[in-house]
Amino acid sequence: MTPIKLLRQIDFIKEIDKLKYIQRKTKLFNSDRCENDAEHSWHLALMAIVLFEHADDQSIDLLKVIKMVLIHDIVEIDAGDTFIYDTQKAHDNTEAERLAANRIFSILPEQQAEELIAIWEEFEAGVSAEAQFAKAMDRLEPLLQNSSNNGGTWNEPGVNYNKVFAKKSVIKKGSSVLWEYAENLIDEGVKKGILKKE
Amino acid sequence: MTPIKLLRQIDFIKEIDKLKYIQRKTKLFNSDRCENDAEHSWHLALMAIVLFEHADDQSIDLLKVIKMVLIHDIVEIDAGDTFIYDTQKAHDNTEAERLAANRIFSILPEQQAEELIAIWEEFEAGVSAEAQFAKAMDRLEPLLQNSSNNGGTWNEPGVNYNKVFAKKSVIKKGSSVLWEYAENLIDEGVKKGILKKE
Repeated sequence: MTPIKLLRQIDFIKEIDKLKYIQRKTKLFNSDRCENDAEHSWHLALMAIVLFEHADDQSIDLLKVIKMVLIHDIVEIDAGDTFIYDTQKAHDNTEAERLAANRIFSILPEQQAEELIAIWEEFEAGVSAEAQFAKAMDRLEPLLQNSSNNGGTWNEPGVNYNKVFAKKSVIKKGSSVLWEYAENLIDEGVKKGILKKE
Repeated sequence: MTPIKLLRQIDFIKEIDKLKYIQRKTKLFNSDRCENDAEHSWHLALMAIVLFEHADDQSIDLLKVIKMVLIHDIVEIDAGDTFIYDTQKAHDNTEAERLAANRIFSILPEQQAEELIAIWEEFEAGVSAEAQFAKAMDRLEPLLQNSSNNGGTWNEPGVNYNKVFAKKSVIKKGSSVLWEYAENLIDEGVKKGILKKE
């Protein structure tokens, strides 16, 4: 007899497969192919491992950061991906995302569901040092992608230097070294003409 | 001035984007779409987190297991994916894979390259408790996928119960609970006629 806890864990493992179908606006490096949320989450986890030494707070729990980035987009299975520069729709903390977190994580046994919902909420809140480093990864990856893609989503209507700078400045909270690098990339984007100043 | 270490880390982050193009034989759950290595690695990392309580050895380092599954297929950027039931080509520990590990991880600063190569080698050797649990994840995911896909790659020429049982029995080394579950799934496959006995 398979324990009920394990059956619920297996159901969750099957359910999150759907993340592989959620397309982001951002494209792979030097590519025209959109990234999906599962690929994106994998990339952020490896970035957190490789860039960990640049976290301002070296006492942060890397395992928690990795859990955060691995699960941070799972709510999009129900709520969909919202373009970060969307002017009509709020990107974060929507009611739809909260409902999605409850539905999807509650497939798991209760204690695990509570743990992962708490980690997701901590990421969303962006206050803890772990959340701030995790969010730095989430902002840095598409910046690297857009710079490699002739601007990429910077070419979408309404996107300009000020908006990019404001969204990316979240990196600063997690890592001053990475923020300095990111600022240079943004400035370079303007110089190259792939990011509009106004 | 961006530190050289960071530039190498960024180069590595760009290089591993290629993992998103490496197609596996196995298809997503209830789907005709092949999984790629980045999606697969993300899924294994979350499986390791969710199924951790079933590891026979509860003293294992979960962070190391996660690092293992996140990087285990990166060598396939150069060496390509080999079908696990391929009769012509060895699946593991090929010279091509060792060369790939050296080339790709050495994009990183030296100490990090050494650390990740060592973790990859530990996974490949499959001797440590961490490697055995990581390998259990790597074997379990496609088993779940094939059962949901009317047999999936079990329908490939030359694949039968004995071969599947032999490959999947690696799960036993990491987790007796998961192995019991896996054995049931394999038996069910035979009963349903989606896995040939001979």
